[in-house]
Amino acid sequence: MNYENLANTYGTPLYIYNFDEVKLRYLELKESFYARKSLICYAVKANSNLSLLKYLANLGAGFDCVSYNEVKKALLAGALKYKIIFSGVGKKDSEIKSALKDDILMINIESFAELNRVEAIAKELNIEARISIRVNPNIDPKTHPYISTGLNENKFGVSIDEAKRMYIKAKNSKFLNPIGIHFHIGSQLSDIKPIHEAASIVAKLMKELKTLEIDIKFFDIGGGIGVRYKDEKEINLYEYAQGILAALKGQDVTIVCEIGRFLVSKAGELLTKVLYEKINNNKRFVIVDSAMNDLLRPSLYDAYHKIVALNGNDELFNCDIVGPVCESGDFLGKNRELPNLKSGDLLVVKNVGAYGFSMSSNYNSRLRAAEIAIINNKIKLIRKRETFEDLIANEVDLLGEE
Amino acid sequence: MNYENLANTYGTPLYIYNFDEVKLRYLELKESFYARKSLICYAVKANSNLSLLKYLANLGAGFDCVSYNEVKKALLAGALKYKIIFSGVGKKDSEIKSALKDDILMINIESFAELNRVEAIAKELNIEARISIRVNPNIDPKTHPYISTGLNENKFGVSIDEAKRMYIKAKNSKFLNPIGIHFHIGSQLSDIKPIHEAASIVAKLMKELKTLEIDIKFFDIGGGIGVRYKDEKEINLYEYAQGILAALKGQDVTIVCEIGRFLVSKAGELLTKVLYEKINNNKRFVIVDSAMNDLLRPSLYDAYHKIVALNGNDELFNCDIVGPVCESGDFLGKNRELPNLKSGDLLVVKNVGAYGFSMSSNYNSRLRAAEIAIINNKIKLIRKRETFEDLIANEVDLLGEE
Repeated sequence: MNYENLANTYGTPLYIYNFDEVKLRYLELKESFYARKSLICYAVKANSNLSLLKYLANLGAGFDCVSYNEVKKALLAGALKYKIIFSGVGKKDSEIKSALKDDILMINIESFAELNRVEAIAKELNIEARISIRVNPNIDPKTHPYISTGLNENKFGVSIDEAKRMYIKAKNSKFLNPIGIHFHIGSQLSDIKPIHEAASIVAKLMKELKTLEIDIKFFDIGGGIGVRYKDEKEINLYEYAQGILAALKGQDVTIVCEIGRFLVSKAGELLTKVLYEKINNNKRFVIVDSAMNDLLRPSLYDAYHKIVALNGNDELFNCDIVGPVCESGDFLGKNRELPNLKSGDLLVVKNVGAYGFSMSSNYNSRLRAAEIAIINNKIKLIRKRETFEDLIANEVDLLGEE
Repeated sequence: MNYENLANTYGTPLYIYNFDEVKLRYLELKESFYARKSLICYAVKANSNLSLLKYLANLGAGFDCVSYNEVKKALLAGALKYKIIFSGVGKKDSEIKSALKDDILMINIESFAELNRVEAIAKELNIEARISIRVNPNIDPKTHPYISTGLNENKFGVSIDEAKRMYIKAKNSKFLNPIGIHFHIGSQLSDIKPIHEAASIVAKLMKELKTLEIDIKFFDIGGGIGVRYKDEKEINLYEYAQGILAALKGQDVTIVCEIGRFLVSKAGELLTKVLYEKINNNKRFVIVDSAMNDLLRPSLYDAYHKIVALNGNDELFNCDIVGPVCESGDFLGKNRELPNLKSGDLLVVKNVGAYGFSMSSNYNSRLRAAEIAIINNKIKLIRKRETFEDLIANEVDLLGEE
């Protein structure tokens, strides 16, 4: 790839996604469940660029949405309504109503209170709401506390016992149709054992529900397949799938995955330009034109992203790669080995296709980056760089006299 | 204040700023330096709403900007050019050029490499660039590592020795005019001793520069005056100012402050609505319609913000207040005491005028909040709530055929 040309044409910071790579990941995952009916739902929150959603829709993907705006985006990008799931721990009434009207596949319910709201809204609309219930199997996925979600002490899902009560209520309601069961124990998982344990627990619950004449059609195993940012162990997809299939032995259900990071992370790069080098008390800093507003993961999760220099000689020296934002927490990488760099040299931050642009902000009044896609070796702009006019659009007309 | 009415009129989440409170803080600070020429520069990054900038400009404030977009915003809001400072560790050439053309008060220089760039650009424009140099006095402010900036191992400023070399270079350049000296040891400071130590070190350097016939006019003491989020000690402004004045004894300079949080934090509240309550394994969660995309500080810094319920009975119970975003890190407060709440009840998150909206994002495709100001007991919308159309504006036209 000619990064120099890309920087000249589109400017920096620039998000670059290789859609062909996304396709490979999608097919790899789909293939691993070939023995079963399966629906791979892309977790839109990882990267919600419309062109990416459209590309995935064309591959046959479904969509896991955590806000009604994500549902709207998916539909706008051409998603089929019966492949859309609406999840999330805090849905507003207006969001539930819109999703029900859109007749999407199902709504993932996170609490008894929400079940009651969905029933009330379905009654108002005089329709039957297809639902799934998120069960919290109380499994420790052993990841960063911010991205683990399957333990009782967090806000997600309901206990097995609560879930049973909710399914019974749903079965007895004219306005609820419990067609799915769901769990998701966390993000960036590198160990399949906790996933398989969770699957067994939830599959057992599904069997019990069957004896109550509650017939689940969709077994939603959530997502969280980890990717290698540095030296993390990667999950073997075959073993991953086999363990799920084993847990489901004798039960006829469609397996649903909700996968974000695995599909798009490695396909994404952030191209950035060196502004200065400086040395403070023997500590070398490479200051670049991307910052925590462009890529929050290093600041927020202390996440590691590989950073590669495209120019420079072969001798490497230790440095921190930092952005222009006025905070010590604004860094892209610490204690890395990079060649001597000069103003204008380019760096590539790897593995940023997921939770990169989607978490970006205008902090320090910085404009959000442009995004491009590589599809069949062709380059396509998929998001325009923000302008100063975008930044002030919702404020400037209100600048009256005080 | 009738929060119920505000929620009905403007929706939630809603940022509410009391501009009268901002004015009191501004006058309080200005007054503490009454014995000297002083310029209070508002640190735009704390909250860059245009109407707020205009309000502060009308009070006579200057502006400390960390990107050229912040300079542009300040000018648009009516700031006087000779009261604008351009700071920041990573300025682009185009930003330096624009700031020089705008003839602002001065550019704060953070490295020798930057000094050379500013000189080159000033030469190109055939003008004399007024500059200040940010000195790193190597003082530990004893705060969160992400917001401390005065130690040698971080990216900000230059050492005393390096500063001297830079001042000499500037003095000998036709295109540079060193009129200021600057330090800033960190944010949210609760102890004045480190500030006074830093002021003494930098004032001593200023004296030395005088012997080299480098005549500094502006002594920029940075900002970082802490506010009380929970039980932090607050700085006594009189003692704060006295210590600075003592350090400057016998030197005739204008004192410049760069103050963000102190001016606006307490004036700001985030109004949010309860969606559900849920209990997981005896842990109570109050799920509200604001999330980490609206207020990042709890997730990013583990920051404490007081949260007050406007409805509910008097009996209080322990709970976590969490948002709808699909991450365990999405919380506004943990282990708080709140009454039983029902869907639609309102909560107020306090002290969010600084680094609240300015760090907000569209994560989970959530729309950014509206902002209103209270001025003389009158309510004024100062930022419209984002729409779905805003969210997709830079992407939807690029949704071609693949």
